[in-house]
Amino acid sequence: MEQEIYYDNSATTRVRPQAAQTAMDLMALSYGNPSSLHRLGFEAQQKMELARRQVAQSLGCEPGCITFTSGGTEADNLAILGGCQAMKRRGGKVVTTAFEHDAVLKTADFLESQGWQVIRLLPDSQGQITPQQVLEAVDEETVLVSVMAVNNEVGSILPVGQIAKALRRQYPQILIHCDAVQAWGKHPLKVGKSLDVDMLSVSGHKIYAPKGIGALYVKKGVRLKPLLFGGGQEKNLRPGTENIAYACAMGTAISLLSEEMEANRAKAKQIKELLLQGLKNFENVRINSPADGTPYILNFSLPGIRSEIMLHFLEERGIYLSSGSACTKGAPSHVLTAMGFSRETADSALRVSFGRENTVEQVPVFLTALEEGIKRIKR
Amino acid sequence: MEQEIYYDNSATTRVRPQAAQTAMDLMALSYGNPSSLHRLGFEAQQKMELARRQVAQSLGCEPGCITFTSGGTEADNLAILGGCQAMKRRGGKVVTTAFEHDAVLKTADFLESQGWQVIRLLPDSQGQITPQQVLEAVDEETVLVSVMAVNNEVGSILPVGQIAKALRRQYPQILIHCDAVQAWGKHPLKVGKSLDVDMLSVSGHKIYAPKGIGALYVKKGVRLKPLLFGGGQEKNLRPGTENIAYACAMGTAISLLSEEMEANRAKAKQIKELLLQGLKNFENVRINSPADGTPYILNFSLPGIRSEIMLHFLEERGIYLSSGSACTKGAPSHVLTAMGFSRETADSALRVSFGRENTVEQVPVFLTALEEGIKRIKR
Repeated sequence: MEQEIYYDNSATTRVRPQAAQTAMDLMALSYGNPSSLHRLGFEAQQKMELARRQVAQSLGCEPGCITFTSGGTEADNLAILGGCQAMKRRGGKVVTTAFEHDAVLKTADFLESQGWQVIRLLPDSQGQITPQQVLEAVDEETVLVSVMAVNNEVGSILPVGQIAKALRRQYPQILIHCDAVQAWGKHPLKVGKSLDVDMLSVSGHKIYAPKGIGALYVKKGVRLKPLLFGGGQEKNLRPGTENIAYACAMGTAISLLSEEMEANRAKAKQIKELLLQGLKNFENVRINSPADGTPYILNFSLPGIRSEIMLHFLEERGIYLSSGSACTKGAPSHVLTAMGFSRETADSALRVSFGRENTVEQVPVFLTALEEGIKRIKR
Repeated sequence: MEQEIYYDNSATTRVRPQAAQTAMDLMALSYGNPSSLHRLGFEAQQKMELARRQVAQSLGCEPGCITFTSGGTEADNLAILGGCQAMKRRGGKVVTTAFEHDAVLKTADFLESQGWQVIRLLPDSQGQITPQQVLEAVDEETVLVSVMAVNNEVGSILPVGQIAKALRRQYPQILIHCDAVQAWGKHPLKVGKSLDVDMLSVSGHKIYAPKGIGALYVKKGVRLKPLLFGGGQEKNLRPGTENIAYACAMGTAISLLSEEMEANRAKAKQIKELLLQGLKNFENVRINSPADGTPYILNFSLPGIRSEIMLHFLEERGIYLSSGSACTKGAPSHVLTAMGFSRETADSALRVSFGRENTVEQVPVFLTALEEGIKRIKR
């Protein structure tokens, strides 16, 4: 293989050297237990609080609003189950969208199995949900609304700020959660006025930190029930000895990424436009991503060519992408289905997702490989 | 500071270089998402399965019985809450001991708040629980029994194998869980015939792997309900993108530690004996650890000297230990209280816990510092 092209950054990213180095330092040097009453413990505690400040800064909130979790899935679960458990006396209804990540959808399924009413709003063909749709679905019995910031398969950017604003006016008691895993570090996310949510989930491994760390923003005054019980860490909301090495790696990674955000987005935009330009010359291509989506994701279908066959052809040439979410191995995309695309489109969908290591030079290499693949597979 | 002495290995350990290197390789090279359908995904998946085999080997079970978690706390929670949820039609009673780690005790408290009956057996002054005690506490309504392998504060070794054997004869339907966090890598743990439990929790950061990874052994055929919902990882029992780097670091760490187990235990025994010998010359010392406990832990009290004062004196000399469990910051030890020790003993307790990096040469240095501390504090 000449040079590998990693186009699966929405599935996971390579840990950036500075983040890995931070993790290493914590493992080898500041290895104390933050709960230990001695210097090594205090030192670990301090590093942990630095990481908390770094994460808080990226979201424009106070460090006390950040709880570290084992990843985005746990953050989503804690927000939804913890919020619903804490506020169940208010009612028994949850509103979300039909094209959330499984960490939200399966949690909603669980609530449904426990007797909760769950409304799953259908996005339009552009991957959009309107504030009006949400307002029509909620009522006085609604405890929680969960809407993602950026869809992980097609890249549509949802109007979470507007949805929250509309909800606050009519239903100020409803808890609002946002899964921002695909937006963090890529788009500005300030949980103050413009994004007035109660809870927001982020994940380390999409921002060049390791897999196994995430965080949940919880607005001051909002009370959640914990999912785990133990030694009282993270103000009892998330007990268990803290994963300091990863928390600090995530702090390093988000600080660096926040600084590069504009430059990275401009480059992703350039790459995506070049790719779209190139795809226009293909005979039979359907673009599944909306035109105004995130520049980091491009989803398209090659009708008649099953995703898996093309993925396999490309991986043999050192090009890595995915058919949809990596987290729903094999199954036809629930995202494309919810957006109203045909089974044929879903079965032939390819998701290309860019990251900071991708270059414009890779685009023609990818396009050539794709063209070759179409010829070879169709033959 | 001349040379630091880290005597807090039961709180947490320094990650060993080979384990840290394994984590680094995974972060930088095999960084794919195990759920991704391409080479980088498969590669990550394969490394993950190697780690699972390493953990399984240390426990004498099949790899399929191992589920990775974010640590010992989550493993304990998953075993107890997941087991009780799955089997609640059998009854509503749980039996455990009064001196478990908080990850078990607080989880039992939660069950109690949900209407379950919880029996907390009192250990004797040697930190022992007998099979007879357990048998007398359980009944046909009992769903789960949870007994730790080695107590984390005093080091008593509990007869979990015998307890399980006695239970199997009379109550084969009861789920048996063992928190083996303090035993793993230090004492042989084979979950076959000699330790016939249904679930067993282990943690990475006590065995020179990082903080933020653990595993739960679940016997074939035993069904648990998951605590988290998402992308279906770990056979749906523990969804969320896998922490491959730490799982592999834990695999490396337990493989190395298993090989050294006998040698390490012999050295710990030598260190502990030297220390006990030295303490005999002190005027007023109470040994709280049983004579037949693990060689890795020595708990003693210096009546009249509050633990915190001594900890502070020692840390200024580069010697790190703890007053009890690091996980219950500040509060008087529930372990010593359950064992019937006086408040004075509990308030002046010191826990010294040894690890692979400790040496016999450190013992006289520690004893001298301790003697100095007593003189200085009493003055």
